[in-house]
Amino acid sequence: MNPQSSASSTSATSTRSASAQRPSPMPFGKYVPYSEQFRVEVPDRTWPDKVITKAPRWCAVDLRDGNQALIEPMNPERKLRMFELLVSMGYKEIEVGFPSASQTDFDFVRMLIDDGLIPDDVVIQVLTQSREHLIARTYEAIAGAKQAIVHLYNSTSTLQRDVVFRTDMDGIVDIALEGARLCRKFEQTIPDTQVFYEYSPESYTGTELEFAARICNEVIEIFEPTPDRKVIINLPATVEMATPNVYADSIEWMNRHLVHRENVVLSLHPHNDRGTAVAAAELGYQAGADRIEGCLFGNGERTGNVDLVTLGMNLFSQGVDPEIDFTVGGGIDHIRRTVEHCNQLGVHERHPYAGDLVFTAFSGSHQDAIKKGLDAMAAEAESKGVTVDDLVWGVPYLPIDPRDLGRSYEAVIRVNSQSGKGGISYLLKTERHLDLPRRLQIEFSRVVQSVTDSGGREVTGEDIWQIFADEYLPAPAGGPLEPWGRLSLRGTRASSVEGGLDTLSVDLVDGGSPVTLEGSGNGPIAAFVDAVSKVGVDVRVLDYAEHALSEGGDATAAAYVECAVGDEVLWGVGIDPSITTASLKAIISAVNRQGRTA
Amino acid sequence: MNPQSSASSTSATSTRSASAQRPSPMPFGKYVPYSEQFRVEVPDRTWPDKVITKAPRWCAVDLRDGNQALIEPMNPERKLRMFELLVSMGYKEIEVGFPSASQTDFDFVRMLIDDGLIPDDVVIQVLTQSREHLIARTYEAIAGAKQAIVHLYNSTSTLQRDVVFRTDMDGIVDIALEGARLCRKFEQTIPDTQVFYEYSPESYTGTELEFAARICNEVIEIFEPTPDRKVIINLPATVEMATPNVYADSIEWMNRHLVHRENVVLSLHPHNDRGTAVAAAELGYQAGADRIEGCLFGNGERTGNVDLVTLGMNLFSQGVDPEIDFTVGGGIDHIRRTVEHCNQLGVHERHPYAGDLVFTAFSGSHQDAIKKGLDAMAAEAESKGVTVDDLVWGVPYLPIDPRDLGRSYEAVIRVNSQSGKGGISYLLKTERHLDLPRRLQIEFSRVVQSVTDSGGREVTGEDIWQIFADEYLPAPAGGPLEPWGRLSLRGTRASSVEGGLDTLSVDLVDGGSPVTLEGSGNGPIAAFVDAVSKVGVDVRVLDYAEHALSEGGDATAAAYVECAVGDEVLWGVGIDPSITTASLKAIISAVNRQGRTA
Repeated sequence: MNPQSSASSTSATSTRSASAQRPSPMPFGKYVPYSEQFRVEVPDRTWPDKVITKAPRWCAVDLRDGNQALIEPMNPERKLRMFELLVSMGYKEIEVGFPSASQTDFDFVRMLIDDGLIPDDVVIQVLTQSREHLIARTYEAIAGAKQAIVHLYNSTSTLQRDVVFRTDMDGIVDIALEGARLCRKFEQTIPDTQVFYEYSPESYTGTELEFAARICNEVIEIFEPTPDRKVIINLPATVEMATPNVYADSIEWMNRHLVHRENVVLSLHPHNDRGTAVAAAELGYQAGADRIEGCLFGNGERTGNVDLVTLGMNLFSQGVDPEIDFTVGGGIDHIRRTVEHCNQLGVHERHPYAGDLVFTAFSGSHQDAIKKGLDAMAAEAESKGVTVDDLVWGVPYLPIDPRDLGRSYEAVIRVNSQSGKGGISYLLKTERHLDLPRRLQIEFSRVVQSVTDSGGREVTGEDIWQIFADEYLPAPAGGPLEPWGRLSLRGTRASSVEGGLDTLSVDLVDGGSPVTLEGSGNGPIAAFVDAVSKVGVDVRVLDYAEHALSEGGDATAAAYVECAVGDEVLWGVGIDPSITTASLKAIISAVNRQGRTA
Repeated sequence: MNPQSSASSTSATSTRSASAQRPSPMPFGKYVPYSEQFRVEVPDRTWPDKVITKAPRWCAVDLRDGNQALIEPMNPERKLRMFELLVSMGYKEIEVGFPSASQTDFDFVRMLIDDGLIPDDVVIQVLTQSREHLIARTYEAIAGAKQAIVHLYNSTSTLQRDVVFRTDMDGIVDIALEGARLCRKFEQTIPDTQVFYEYSPESYTGTELEFAARICNEVIEIFEPTPDRKVIINLPATVEMATPNVYADSIEWMNRHLVHRENVVLSLHPHNDRGTAVAAAELGYQAGADRIEGCLFGNGERTGNVDLVTLGMNLFSQGVDPEIDFTVGGGIDHIRRTVEHCNQLGVHERHPYAGDLVFTAFSGSHQDAIKKGLDAMAAEAESKGVTVDDLVWGVPYLPIDPRDLGRSYEAVIRVNSQSGKGGISYLLKTERHLDLPRRLQIEFSRVVQSVTDSGGREVTGEDIWQIFADEYLPAPAGGPLEPWGRLSLRGTRASSVEGGLDTLSVDLVDGGSPVTLEGSGNGPIAAFVDAVSKVGVDVRVLDYAEHALSEGGDATAAAYVECAVGDEVLWGVGIDPSITTASLKAIISAVNRQGRTA
């Protein structure tokens, strides 16, 4: 259509035919470059010279755009936790749902209002399509709120005009204007609520700029914005379609072409299809925007909305107040856990600022440089008679101080391929087929750490297995390890009747002496616990898990049992061809370990 | 230090005091803006007008920078799989290790060379610090290779000069030049290997541009590059410290200030601390670079190296040949699984192009628009007498055709909150505490799908539980479901002796008639399988798992058993207070299900 006439092109310098890359067999020819579809020309752009010195107005859309992209959308309990988290962090504009499209969303908005859960300085925002019955329903949803933003949208892209709406530009403008007029009408039905407006030309990045400006400007005229009641014009990268400098150019162009600009809040809403949503938001903000919509940790449709945490922490790392508290509840890990609970999606280990590994250096040279940097700061603080927190932060490989997010240095300098819980568990799983429950992983990693700390040497997979066997398993007679512990199992006889109690007769060696005990309960574990209570063993089973080590009914089983032995909570492990015997051995393991440490 | 004098600043438009954001309590004051630390002034920049039309030279550093950041670095088997994957995808320059720092890396490089595993058109690259014994060892590692890139680095940043090396600019230059001279010397010890050079001023983004240019230019003179033997100058964002336009400006500045530019390959190496590594790579490439170093799916130190998959697929989506095949082995999912195996790190559900959810639309309006887009393409293809693959791709919300990556439309339009395996498993776990093994999740999701497909209605958590109980569990008498299946359990008597076989006597109802059977084996499962074989039941246990449903030894257990019943492989589930009885019920469940479907 409109080739970007001012564009020149870049190409790689080819040097050696021996290692030249080959053409891909993939069908790249079925795609047309963005620059050949849309004209975005701003040769006098100013945004590349701008530096961000102030936080934008934030709008969190986790409860709407984020929620609609979840495998399992939030139930009311998770919705409320997300809302309360966002409020506690300091977000003042929160899109809470699409009440006309979802009864759950409608009920949630009503609950927030009817139960008085919205602080006076927080504005809820609700999305609506531009159709009369949906707009009517939207105003029913927000009636009684002190203030609310009604967010009206319709799709404006060339593609959606052609294949979805099958109408021309005028038809698309009519949809928007009719919606805006209906909003003004229904607004009068809720005079006690101060209503603000937001309009989005949805699929803006697939829309000709001239048309985007036309439809926004006509909508602005209907909303009649004033300095006290500005209108928000939101320009979404519904699909991210080009490099982020192109989005920034388009924002600068729109910034110059919107009417009543002084009464317009220019808002960005980037998605992350090309992995550059954060950059698009930052460059678009440099280009003149006032406000950014996104989600915590980048949840949202497909690749997600832009990540509000990364955007805020990027400001923080430059000495700019993010106007958000990323340490509520004790630190970023608390925020992460809450969001993971609400979204039922994890945050990746390498996610900026919040991932498990982002303040961790594994390589020796990095660890050494970090240590020298921390030492230099400590020395400088001492010489100046101040604390380290009074100094400008400067430590190699750590763009910010992990403590500012409630995390510690320890992970930074102590985790390595041997001592990490993940590494230990990985070795036991791949080399020994043992799949330890999470709390047992934590318990065992402390055992390994105590051995590696005292020995100071590298530990191998074989070392880890020896440490594990010595800690949890009875040693075979004649092996390299001494047998240990009060109890060992010799045999069992059990019977069960459907609907009744199991009975168990068990042959044990107790402190060197053979003994036969009887017990009963719901299954062999309960019966065994009952039996050993008769020789004074006080054990309760808190949790257990069991799995096959290999294929087949004759295969060996591993049982993991978390027990309270007296006052102490600890794990036991049993390995045996019989699943029953493995479980009983696991209980004995826990009992013996308690006696060992006592 | 040097305020960016040309910079102006952006700030948000504040509109309503009622919802004004509050200052954060976080200590942002301890950070200094990048623009006040480093001067990057390129007012006549050209990169914002460039459009990428050709793939860069790629260099994959998964086996070095990626590997060193893993909790559990790759063993030789995983290293080789990664190398073979990268070769099969079409990468021609592969950094395979840091052989002077790691015996594992040294042995791996030797194995590649000695076993002839490096294709003639692939160049291996090895990293070395600028110290004589390390450089000597590096040349031992690559001896015998047809060609290799020796990658020399030393750290040049203000911070590392101050706190790590405690030397001035001249001292840092000397380290680099001495290393380069030693490389030229040791090069003569391996005359049969064609050696190329790469130099990195490590921590480049924390280095004054004038100093970075000085040290690179002095190193270039020592390497004496020619058109046939260019030198690679690699400018790493070792830590990402500013918005990506600043990195691009710095690359354009360096591009203008490097000597012998025609014989220099300008290389980028972005990290992702601010979440903008992809943008930095793209804008830096527009600014004049020739080559990009990164890792598949963005593995690497802390937040990772730039993601080569996203960069390549971003080109693809613009109709530019990525010169890489992202469909080797059947598609992106094969590549992802291989990388997950090698790195022991997952790829996030929302990772561009490769995440589980990135071609999935949950919202009704998105699904509707996608369907209309696909229908329009089908109609256009038919009217033109061509296939859909001959058309320019254009479907709302799908920036590329998922089939181009070996993925299907089905996931796009059929997954929803009810039918997804994740959603089903989530509901069973949160509402019923059942933690289904992965293969059982897949089996059960097909059962649910067949019910929802025939009924066409929404299914709730309670519906899913009813479907699960009806499929896997014997119905209680008098309940809403009819009891079904050939076998049911009435009682057992078992005995075991440590080191010997278990024996089991079991009371069953078999097709309505009571029967008592005897069996023996390694544990109750094997003994039960033996017992039921006496009434002609041919069942083998392939896998099982068991866990507690709640706390305490009296708690109920859930057992999941994967069985081969005759020729059919299927799962059974048993729930019982006794872990033994739960397992036996699970086997009966599988046997009964097989009879039901037969």
